[in-house]
Amino acid sequence: MIKLYRFGRPFATEAVVEALAPQPAETLPYFSVQNDGCGFSCELGKETAVYGLGEAIRGMNKRGWIYKSNCADDPSHTEGKHSLYGAHNFLLIAREKPFGVFFDYPGELIFDIGYTEMNTLQVSTKEANLDVYIIDGDGLEDIVRQFRRLIGRSYIAPKWAFGYGQSRWSYYSEDEVREVVRQHRENHIPLDMVYLDIDYMERYKDFTVNKKTFPQFQEFVQEMRQQNIHLVPIIDAGVKIEKDYSVYEEGVQNGYFCKKADGSPFVGAVWPGKSHFPDFLNQKVREWFGKKYAFLLRQGIDGFWNDMNEPAVFYSEDGLKNTFSELKKLEGQNLDMDKVNHFRGLVNDLSNNPEDYKSFYHNCDGKMVRHDKVHNLYGYNMTRAAGEVFEKLEPDKRILMFSRSSYIGMHRFGGIWTGDNCSWWRHLLLEIQMMPSLNMCGFLYAGADIGGFGDDTTADLLLRWTAFGIFTPLMRNHSALGTRKQEAYRFPEAMPALKKLIGIRYALLPYLYSEYMKAALRGNLYFRPLAFVYPQDKQAAEVEDQLMLGDELMLVPVYTQNASGRTVYLPEDMKLVQMRSVSDFTVETMEKGYHYVPAALDEVVFFIRSDRLIPLSYGGECVSQVDFNHLRLLGNVQTAATYQYYNDDGSSKDYENPAHFAEITMSADSRVSAKGDMCLQLESAL
Amino acid sequence: MIKLYRFGRPFATEAVVEALAPQPAETLPYFSVQNDGCGFSCELGKETAVYGLGEAIRGMNKRGWIYKSNCADDPSHTEGKHSLYGAHNFLLIAREKPFGVFFDYPGELIFDIGYTEMNTLQVSTKEANLDVYIIDGDGLEDIVRQFRRLIGRSYIAPKWAFGYGQSRWSYYSEDEVREVVRQHRENHIPLDMVYLDIDYMERYKDFTVNKKTFPQFQEFVQEMRQQNIHLVPIIDAGVKIEKDYSVYEEGVQNGYFCKKADGSPFVGAVWPGKSHFPDFLNQKVREWFGKKYAFLLRQGIDGFWNDMNEPAVFYSEDGLKNTFSELKKLEGQNLDMDKVNHFRGLVNDLSNNPEDYKSFYHNCDGKMVRHDKVHNLYGYNMTRAAGEVFEKLEPDKRILMFSRSSYIGMHRFGGIWTGDNCSWWRHLLLEIQMMPSLNMCGFLYAGADIGGFGDDTTADLLLRWTAFGIFTPLMRNHSALGTRKQEAYRFPEAMPALKKLIGIRYALLPYLYSEYMKAALRGNLYFRPLAFVYPQDKQAAEVEDQLMLGDELMLVPVYTQNASGRTVYLPEDMKLVQMRSVSDFTVETMEKGYHYVPAALDEVVFFIRSDRLIPLSYGGECVSQVDFNHLRLLGNVQTAATYQYYNDDGSSKDYENPAHFAEITMSADSRVSAKGDMCLQLESAL
Repeated sequence: MIKLYRFGRPFATEAVVEALAPQPAETLPYFSVQNDGCGFSCELGKETAVYGLGEAIRGMNKRGWIYKSNCADDPSHTEGKHSLYGAHNFLLIAREKPFGVFFDYPGELIFDIGYTEMNTLQVSTKEANLDVYIIDGDGLEDIVRQFRRLIGRSYIAPKWAFGYGQSRWSYYSEDEVREVVRQHRENHIPLDMVYLDIDYMERYKDFTVNKKTFPQFQEFVQEMRQQNIHLVPIIDAGVKIEKDYSVYEEGVQNGYFCKKADGSPFVGAVWPGKSHFPDFLNQKVREWFGKKYAFLLRQGIDGFWNDMNEPAVFYSEDGLKNTFSELKKLEGQNLDMDKVNHFRGLVNDLSNNPEDYKSFYHNCDGKMVRHDKVHNLYGYNMTRAAGEVFEKLEPDKRILMFSRSSYIGMHRFGGIWTGDNCSWWRHLLLEIQMMPSLNMCGFLYAGADIGGFGDDTTADLLLRWTAFGIFTPLMRNHSALGTRKQEAYRFPEAMPALKKLIGIRYALLPYLYSEYMKAALRGNLYFRPLAFVYPQDKQAAEVEDQLMLGDELMLVPVYTQNASGRTVYLPEDMKLVQMRSVSDFTVETMEKGYHYVPAALDEVVFFIRSDRLIPLSYGGECVSQVDFNHLRLLGNVQTAATYQYYNDDGSSKDYENPAHFAEITMSADSRVSAKGDMCLQLESAL
Repeated sequence: MIKLYRFGRPFATEAVVEALAPQPAETLPYFSVQNDGCGFSCELGKETAVYGLGEAIRGMNKRGWIYKSNCADDPSHTEGKHSLYGAHNFLLIAREKPFGVFFDYPGELIFDIGYTEMNTLQVSTKEANLDVYIIDGDGLEDIVRQFRRLIGRSYIAPKWAFGYGQSRWSYYSEDEVREVVRQHRENHIPLDMVYLDIDYMERYKDFTVNKKTFPQFQEFVQEMRQQNIHLVPIIDAGVKIEKDYSVYEEGVQNGYFCKKADGSPFVGAVWPGKSHFPDFLNQKVREWFGKKYAFLLRQGIDGFWNDMNEPAVFYSEDGLKNTFSELKKLEGQNLDMDKVNHFRGLVNDLSNNPEDYKSFYHNCDGKMVRHDKVHNLYGYNMTRAAGEVFEKLEPDKRILMFSRSSYIGMHRFGGIWTGDNCSWWRHLLLEIQMMPSLNMCGFLYAGADIGGFGDDTTADLLLRWTAFGIFTPLMRNHSALGTRKQEAYRFPEAMPALKKLIGIRYALLPYLYSEYMKAALRGNLYFRPLAFVYPQDKQAAEVEDQLMLGDELMLVPVYTQNASGRTVYLPEDMKLVQMRSVSDFTVETMEKGYHYVPAALDEVVFFIRSDRLIPLSYGGECVSQVDFNHLRLLGNVQTAATYQYYNDDGSSKDYENPAHFAEITMSADSRVSAKGDMCLQLESAL
């Protein structure tokens, strides 16, 4: 049961897709309201866990910190930060009778979850204009399912996008990309995508291709497709100010860029230097910008990642002018502590400065809305711009799309990657902890940069991260300019193991894709904290480094260096699977309780729950080589196991067709059978 | 057995105290030598752990990363960094037949421990002038003991310095300090020290006191002593350039500051702005600077912390000039990616710039030595300056001294704190992992800022960190300007528990002090990785989040948020102690293996090994109130337990007097007895 409580006159974020009649604000349950609707306070039981917030630092249970919904391009994801790139204002309060709450508010929102007072949740906004949705239900999963229905079906990626992708800031030329592909194909490391970071463009201009380094782009895209490789270019939010650059010229002519109070377009710098920012909150601008993607679609591109759309602003024209004038004043002075801090601040506070976000406006149905009040909607609407146009241009073809910045609502138009993480073991754990939170907020096509983006990776970190990454819908290895190159083939000692691990991804694809589709179609979680599955088990409730995948698996990733295994908690008897390749694995039944599980660097270890089975393929080096109809079933069958299998062509949108569902059964003596229209070949994997 | 292999003509670091005759360099075992002695390569078995490196990031087992000995003031201690504040070039290679190696080299040294190639240790220096000590022995502990004999006895702090200390950047006045003390005393939170950070000085000038805010300093020191509080002021390495400031004037007149190639003193900025840096590598300068501490000693001060002695340099005069001139060139340009990076770098690379470290010189026995070649000795010799003078001024009184920067050798003159950590759970774990490594390198009086220095702490982090911090010799709560105030009394909900936890420290003092003294006098480890105690146990070898303390205890700190306990590995049957206060604890025998151990936020949990006992006091609110002769014995006695107890007056230096040792025995039926000259009252605590 979802109820809406409206405070003031909320901005129409279009986060939700169901229109509810608002209840009287003064009847809002669970919270006491302060500051005329800018503050919401709720007492928490000493042991009540709080879940949600999607993309955020710290653990699955968000208690004990202040989180700020304020989409920010900050590449240092440490425990002391308050914001990442997204704003996902949904919380689940896991009381004995749990409830969910969604604060639909597009400006800065603060969640003090037991930070100031250990047993108090305090939510605060700057203005008392917001919609608060309260969701009561029959347990945590039911509440999530209701919420997901409210916000609409999650984005569904093409099947090929469930393959493995390789990225780097940057592959600078066709030949560099060819070499990446060659290395993968010759070494039989499966691969479906190569990402093009900012340097494929001509001087960082959106919807251009550098003619020197990618001279025959259309032909090159085809050449790659013949090798079963999809090229996935990046698109940035900022548009370079450059005379005769058509996107710039059109935007200026039509008034499509965000404007300052004086009506002139706001000037902020990103990669190309001075740029304008399309006013994505305006429907006309979205249509205009969305259609620009056709420049690449026409050349055979069928996937994109949207970046820098918080929006990131290195400096504003006005801010930089001020900095230079202030710097001059400091010259020749004795810069002591205070002055040196001021000096540094003049430069370092230029980026993503809150004052700049207050200095430009959106035109929303004729009304000028100051950016900071709707800041968290910018990335959402950039991705929506593309998504809405794709629906028209390619009504029956799925286009890969994911974004850095997001707000709930954007999950209908694309996935996200978790931004500029680092090659830190702690960030592998952070991804493990973030995935179920993202799922709760509707983001299913998600994943972190495997191996880590910033800083230098190590062979063992890449191995362990890959062993987890094979389970995330978005599986991409990506690394930053200036860091150690981290393609699998750069590590001669680790490559054989990396190849096998990535191969296991392709073996798991029938299961992973099926689970993804069911999660999207039914509003389920793809990844769940153990607490959601075993709500009565106090030990399970605290486990923050294991994940349930679907109804079948429990993942127990290794995320510490120099460990040859880890301790795990089993909330029930399960079967341990130690998988070294598509065809080489061992299984062992383990009892409920604490165990140490060995996990070599070249192994994936996970558990199958009792009376469950998962379908495996025979593998492949790209998704199109994987046979989704010829399945090996890996089961932990005491009496009988049934699995609802989903499969489709992976590119069209006839998702709900009953022919896409089959019921696969396995008996205790390993006999297998299937019901449904699919033509499946089944056998037991054991 | 220690052997010395000399390459080239090493700088005399005076890290070691035993003179060994060098072996022919070409007979160096274990390593192959490259680059004429600038490179040392050693194959590592796939499972060979590598310990050591003292103050460094990452785990106890250092494999899988590049570490750089390059003392650096960098407050961001993330996994991607290579250097912290100290340079501790000792490694233990835990092969089947283990060996130790000490690279006595005062410049930048790189340890590639299985980073570039997973099974290769590669050590490299810039110049082939160094002493390499190879230590063979009977197991890891024997090797450490030999090494510790080579480098000389570790610094011994006064007994009061084993109490609890409270710090903040900054307590700005006598009244602020009084309030801190009053809050502790009135709330019965034990306390022995209050630290004075940089603001007690007059405009950050060493050996001055701000007369406005601390108008009656000498009387104030006495007032505090009457409340059993020791004030511990900070001393910085840089000396403010200010006419008529005596330290500056004397230094210039006598040529005591580091000089540029042209003979003028090097100008770099720290807190006071432009400063000179005493040439601590010069014996005369050490004596001069060391004697300056008498300004504070005379006023009743008996403890110091030396800071900023890497040395930290915010900017050099020349560097800043260049930056301003380069900045001007950028004005008015379109700053695109490359230029904006250059712009930021101009400001951010000013601090601790390697070029600056190449621009000044030390006068070592008349020879000019460029700073970068001996960079890692600077903090060591600042602390040695004080230590050598203290020996003369106060030959029979211990003075508290610890430093931020250090090199092996400095451990004879003071302890260290681990610098500007953050209020991150990961940094609590980092401290746990760093402590035994520091001990290996001779640093026994050590500890991290409890609760974390940078960023905002939380009540639960402070509780968990305190529960571990009660075991570290240096126990100090410290936090940075601009962060949440983190004195125990700032957290009304947590204060009762914090008070009890700190109280447990005072109950444990007889044991902790005794263990400290034995470790110092015998060259033992105070903290050991489990691998050192159970070398045959492969599971124990991988445990990186538990510690052995002395021969008696195994510590199992909780270092994750929202956990009400943790899993532990017991390498043998032990007795679990859950301690809630000096007099409130429960014990339970647990079997070898993996267990989940509950640990409430107000509890300390640890294990006592079989047939071991520890002596406890009845507590106190300051060290002088603790009765070290009236002991309660907490034992895990199957047949009989014997403990060698050390106690002395805690201030004089007659360390080896046999009267300071007693043998305490406990039988299986809890009868207790003591041998020795001490007048002990003993009873069983159970």
